[in-house]
Amino acid sequence: MTDGFFEVVARQRACRAFDPDREVGDDLVERVLDAARFAPSAENTQPWVFIVVHDAERRARLTDLMARLWAAAPDRGMDEALHADVGAAFGGGFATAPVWIVVGADDERAPRPEQSSSIYPAVQNLLLAATALGLGSAMTTIASYDPAEVRAIAGLPESVRPYAMVPLGWPAKPLGPPRRRPVAEIAHREAFGESW
Amino acid sequence: MTDGFFEVVARQRACRAFDPDREVGDDLVERVLDAARFAPSAENTQPWVFIVVHDAERRARLTDLMARLWAAAPDRGMDEALHADVGAAFGGGFATAPVWIVVGADDERAPRPEQSSSIYPAVQNLLLAATALGLGSAMTTIASYDPAEVRAIAGLPESVRPYAMVPLGWPAKPLGPPRRRPVAEIAHREAFGESW
Repeated sequence: MTDGFFEVVARQRACRAFDPDREVGDDLVERVLDAARFAPSAENTQPWVFIVVHDAERRARLTDLMARLWAAAPDRGMDEALHADVGAAFGGGFATAPVWIVVGADDERAPRPEQSSSIYPAVQNLLLAATALGLGSAMTTIASYDPAEVRAIAGLPESVRPYAMVPLGWPAKPLGPPRRRPVAEIAHREAFGESW
Repeated sequence: MTDGFFEVVARQRACRAFDPDREVGDDLVERVLDAARFAPSAENTQPWVFIVVHDAERRARLTDLMARLWAAAPDRGMDEALHADVGAAFGGGFATAPVWIVVGADDERAPRPEQSSSIYPAVQNLLLAATALGLGSAMTTIASYDPAEVRAIAGLPESVRPYAMVPLGWPAKPLGPPRRRPVAEIAHREAFGESW
């Protein structure tokens, strides 16, 4: 299932529960990684590192870590329904993903202040590619608040800082359309506050 | 010019010189902003702010700021040909773009540590959408090193932090394919260092 660019963009949505019995083939993982590498990066340093985790024990350590960090996170007045959805994901939904991709940046390729503007575009390419292929995925960053533990799980050297962890799998149920603010609310003409 | 998702992804490349006589219609700007808003964001906070700058004086202030910051930046051993290209862009190529989009994040919607993982995916959607439409664009972040000056140029309140500035226009010449590392160099199986 591959279709037009704008259709893929408008369909992308966080998937928080996966079909635990359906694997994701290496050919599909390769396609999402191939998309990721085309992202722009600061001075074309391409500082990204992708660890593709299938191993059940490593995946469990990763999702347990995320569950612990979520449980300890302060409630910031998140929308109640969304809070319940995200809580269910960290509480077990994400653990159904057959593959996790840990995305990091290598300090030896790009300095810290320039990493996020390179890494997150690559992750976005990855998420969009998954969507184009009919796979479920999600941007999660919570585990990066404990980089030492992520390094231990994914065998990352000290020079690689984890930024995002993306579950990949087949959605347990069809995903509805994303809920987003309209352009008129987010765009301004010439200066902030001037309506677009 | 709109085509398949994977073709658009593989074609995206930084454009550093634009046709100064060819405007970008509001309909096209609207389409790239429409794509941007579908990005994921931390807890769906959608903290993005887009300032669409056409005004020649504001654009000149922005590209002058970028030129000054580039001239003052330390040389980090960038590839020589790329260094020359980027220098030419900051030295005048970017000034040929008829539109600049300043992208910021609003502290009132999302806390600082969670902004970059929301903003850069939205910028990436914007860049990809521009590519899909045949427009040239580029991710630039250098001006964000002087947030006060960007705030002054784009009329941003203190609560909005600038993250990226994207030129939009028609490429002065066709863009070649991007140069990227192969998947085998950036992907690892189960743990860092294990070949994919």
